[in-house]
Amino acid sequence: MAKTSNFTYRSKYVVSINSSECVKKWEPIKNQNQKLGFTMWGHSFYESASRLLRKHPSVSKLLVVVTVSGGGLAAFHETTPVHTVYADSVQEDQIAKKKKVVVLGTGWAGVSFLKNLKSSNYDVEVVSPKNYFLFTPLLPSVTCGTVEARSIVEPIRCITKKKGLEVQFREAVCHKIDPKKKKVYCRSTQDTNLGGKHGEFSVDYDYLIIAMGAQSNTFNTPGVEQYAHFLKGIEDAMKIRQSVINCFERASLPCVSEEERKNILHFVCVGGGPAGVEFAAELHDFVKEDLAKLYPSVIDRVQITVIEASDHILNMFDKRITAFAEQKFSRDGIDVKTGSMVVKVTDKELSTKERATGKVSHLPYGMVLWATGIGPRPEVIDFMKQIGQSNRRVLATDEWLRVEGCDGVYALGDCATINQRRVMEDIVEIFRTADTDKSGTLNLEEFQEIMDDLVERYPQLELHLKSKQMRNIDELLEKSWQNPTAEVDIETFKSALSQADSQMKNLPATAQVAAQQGAYLANCFNRMEECEKYPEGPLRFRGVGRHCFQPFRYKHFGMFAPLGGEQTAAHLPGDWVSIGHSTQWLWYSVYASKLVSWRTRVLVVSDWGRRFVFGRDSSRL
Amino acid sequence: MAKTSNFTYRSKYVVSINSSECVKKWEPIKNQNQKLGFTMWGHSFYESASRLLRKHPSVSKLLVVVTVSGGGLAAFHETTPVHTVYADSVQEDQIAKKKKVVVLGTGWAGVSFLKNLKSSNYDVEVVSPKNYFLFTPLLPSVTCGTVEARSIVEPIRCITKKKGLEVQFREAVCHKIDPKKKKVYCRSTQDTNLGGKHGEFSVDYDYLIIAMGAQSNTFNTPGVEQYAHFLKGIEDAMKIRQSVINCFERASLPCVSEEERKNILHFVCVGGGPAGVEFAAELHDFVKEDLAKLYPSVIDRVQITVIEASDHILNMFDKRITAFAEQKFSRDGIDVKTGSMVVKVTDKELSTKERATGKVSHLPYGMVLWATGIGPRPEVIDFMKQIGQSNRRVLATDEWLRVEGCDGVYALGDCATINQRRVMEDIVEIFRTADTDKSGTLNLEEFQEIMDDLVERYPQLELHLKSKQMRNIDELLEKSWQNPTAEVDIETFKSALSQADSQMKNLPATAQVAAQQGAYLANCFNRMEECEKYPEGPLRFRGVGRHCFQPFRYKHFGMFAPLGGEQTAAHLPGDWVSIGHSTQWLWYSVYASKLVSWRTRVLVVSDWGRRFVFGRDSSRL
Repeated sequence: MAKTSNFTYRSKYVVSINSSECVKKWEPIKNQNQKLGFTMWGHSFYESASRLLRKHPSVSKLLVVVTVSGGGLAAFHETTPVHTVYADSVQEDQIAKKKKVVVLGTGWAGVSFLKNLKSSNYDVEVVSPKNYFLFTPLLPSVTCGTVEARSIVEPIRCITKKKGLEVQFREAVCHKIDPKKKKVYCRSTQDTNLGGKHGEFSVDYDYLIIAMGAQSNTFNTPGVEQYAHFLKGIEDAMKIRQSVINCFERASLPCVSEEERKNILHFVCVGGGPAGVEFAAELHDFVKEDLAKLYPSVIDRVQITVIEASDHILNMFDKRITAFAEQKFSRDGIDVKTGSMVVKVTDKELSTKERATGKVSHLPYGMVLWATGIGPRPEVIDFMKQIGQSNRRVLATDEWLRVEGCDGVYALGDCATINQRRVMEDIVEIFRTADTDKSGTLNLEEFQEIMDDLVERYPQLELHLKSKQMRNIDELLEKSWQNPTAEVDIETFKSALSQADSQMKNLPATAQVAAQQGAYLANCFNRMEECEKYPEGPLRFRGVGRHCFQPFRYKHFGMFAPLGGEQTAAHLPGDWVSIGHSTQWLWYSVYASKLVSWRTRVLVVSDWGRRFVFGRDSSRL
Repeated sequence: MAKTSNFTYRSKYVVSINSSECVKKWEPIKNQNQKLGFTMWGHSFYESASRLLRKHPSVSKLLVVVTVSGGGLAAFHETTPVHTVYADSVQEDQIAKKKKVVVLGTGWAGVSFLKNLKSSNYDVEVVSPKNYFLFTPLLPSVTCGTVEARSIVEPIRCITKKKGLEVQFREAVCHKIDPKKKKVYCRSTQDTNLGGKHGEFSVDYDYLIIAMGAQSNTFNTPGVEQYAHFLKGIEDAMKIRQSVINCFERASLPCVSEEERKNILHFVCVGGGPAGVEFAAELHDFVKEDLAKLYPSVIDRVQITVIEASDHILNMFDKRITAFAEQKFSRDGIDVKTGSMVVKVTDKELSTKERATGKVSHLPYGMVLWATGIGPRPEVIDFMKQIGQSNRRVLATDEWLRVEGCDGVYALGDCATINQRRVMEDIVEIFRTADTDKSGTLNLEEFQEIMDDLVERYPQLELHLKSKQMRNIDELLEKSWQNPTAEVDIETFKSALSQADSQMKNLPATAQVAAQQGAYLANCFNRMEECEKYPEGPLRFRGVGRHCFQPFRYKHFGMFAPLGGEQTAAHLPGDWVSIGHSTQWLWYSVYASKLVSWRTRVLVVSDWGRRFVFGRDSSRL
């Protein structure tokens, strides 16, 4: 029954997509006092039409019908109408009922949500300290000027405008979330006394999307905040670029001793993850290809060091990639110190401790980048305390990205993690639900009835089957059901599924995960009303009926690790590994295509071209 | 006699230009241990040749002859030889004698000097707080993102490397000049304790080129330093861009009252000169073309005001341009307040005083740009005090750009002004020099003998003749010499020339003047040795013989004033005025061609293209 109605819904949905896509090509009208207007034959027509509408608002309904039915043709004529996407939502009463969605953050998760939110049934307000979206995978390229800062950012207002969404954007920091009052408290990012309120304001919400990202994790190492560079925001990348040139200029001064010169030109990267390794590789290329020509007298003093606490750099990648990267770095003269932890940073040196021997050594440096991983932001920690998650490291959500215990609060991206439900926690309820004849035992038929829902609800089961090289979940209980009429009791059932939970893994804190989560959640919001009527998710084992939506499932498309010298390593799905110049071109094409707008795409590609022809700029801006 | 030897020299000079221009096409060799080497057939030949040379240095002289005589052909083959330009200067003893030239500053004057310095007879050291050259005419375009900051800067090291000059660059501020010890004292621009010396060092010089530019003049108006933006450096332009977006973001916050919103979006430009007017026009275009679409709810609150103390904006331009600009601004809704002076700036408002009535009014603002003119830098004021120029407003030089009373010190660009010599100061000496027969009177023949030198030495004479619509200087004394044998006494002579000095004008503080001065001075340095032997300047009236060089003469190529909306006004030589869209295209082509390198040229043109296609970026970076 549910399946059938679900199908009915889906076909409805296709229709609504089509009509909204026609409307998408139109520009929203500028004068917000009007409900509707269009300029099919120039400005004067637009003006008289709008005057007509203001006098006789009832004409608008007629026009809506004409406009929507003639959508294809009108779009072709560059018509300029309609600030609502669905014809029926023009109704005054429905506008009044719009639910308020507040999005905190404009990173991958937040923007992916906004870009995929199709329905205009919501009143959307975005609060973020940055008025732009940053394409983070190219951030290391900005540190050395391979790509310019402005080429990888896109204003949020441009993104939402292009989508035809009516979104209020507020450049502010959300410093407190009150899930009881359904309110967020914000403060302007600008240090100005506004309206005697210090730029503070509050926003009510029906749904809250927390996508505030994370911050660099210093592990409370003394001196890091003060002396090290981070690589989270675009300003960080710009500061690093300036700092690299600063070091070269300082080293070129006549008052500097040879010893000092060597120290100033020692660039240290703490953390051998993708960001750290890419920075080291970029810096090496910058020094070799560009700075060597401009600073010939000091160039032989340059040293780049990567410090990694574990035994290998890029340890989240395949071993073949790790080995290749370590060999390439060794050939390039980049010093890789593995098994070392940085325990202290001062203005001129950092102290490292060897993990194996505990030996502490001191390393003078000119510039240090801290790229060891991420931790939660203070506002999120504060929120976690409020909702009783203070013992956790990251804000936890369920598989539908909902923050448990808070009505209408969702969290996604780097600030949250999915707290996957254990099969063993629900095993009794699963057994009870499956046992439709209440016999206290399960037969094959009963089990097959819940099988699909079980795999959907507990994705770890699928991984467990894969690890056991089984094709189907009933293979787990195969022996018990060699005879089709045999029955399985709860203990046998438990022991068959007992190892499944060991396959649970947290998702990595990557752009890919955040973007997929944003798109998933927007899709849920787009279909909220329909799915509430016709739920499409798996059976509720602890409750009755079905979940509204299918839970979030991450699909891994692979990972890149650029290693400099026009060589990149890639770990692709299906355990494929690809390394070398051709992978660099794959990298170029994937990243160019993934950029958020045509503007950024053109700019980044022309930046790459500019670098090939003229090299990187070394002006200290 | 002097003329003949001068002529002899000139023909020699032509030869030397030609040979040096052949050499210009070659790249300097990278290995500095070698005296000479060339790679006519690839790298391996280069290496074996250089090995040969290192073993048998006497071969080099033979090779020099071959290289220089075959210059044309070798250049065609992209040969790579010689780090000295003149064949005879390869001699070891001559290298040891190289004079040290220190250039302070890397603006138009300094860079024009460096770009035109051909001879490698000097040991050049450049000290500047910026390691790049900034193409200042496009600075207003950066304030609103029409052109990106990095597109109009070029690292000094790239410029000198391309010219094949061996130049030491130091990123430092010169904080003290000691003309007696021939030493400059410098300090690193970076806030770091270097070598226990706080980054301080001194540099000795034989010739000092002061090209430090100027700074914005606040006329000691209270609050300007603290609250107003300036538009001198690239950082200023970047800050203004950020500040404009800041205002729009602040105005979009819900905690802001309507009154506050209006004030926040009030952009004030103090000073109606070219920079201020261009900024106002750029901002108007930015608001109208880009921000109006992204901030529709606040856009009708935007107000741009230009405050000018005199009666008209652009008052250094032709009246037709001023009138057009004022009309255009009035149509565009840009408020022009003339006859008003700003007397005080606080964090939220500025106080203006009407020049005519003395009435003080208060103007709330969101952002204020201070573009009222320039004043000397503190280091230059300090130097002026040392050399007894403390009563002057700007550092004064003679017509050869030499700072009087200081041996080997030259000053050019915005930091200096040419203190033109008055004819009446030297009138007695001029008469005495002309009076070759010591008769106490001048006849026509005697006067004609010194005529050319007189006009060359005192350029105001030429302007005086033009203003009197005379073709030749002897027309001034025409009546006295109606009879060819008549004689003129000193009193008649004095009264004939007495009005000439009223035509003296200070050169404007523009990029054009600075660039021409730099090129002039470099040309003098290039020919120093020859000109000392065979002076080519005018007769010395106070001394004996001739001046080494002709004095500096400025040639005006016109001025542009972009007025927004793809319209520009231009005041061209010969009192031509051109206004409109076609002039905007002239502006595009002139500025694109004048850019310092192909890299910046390509970047600026692609920025213009990007703006046409995608608009300006409004991310707050």
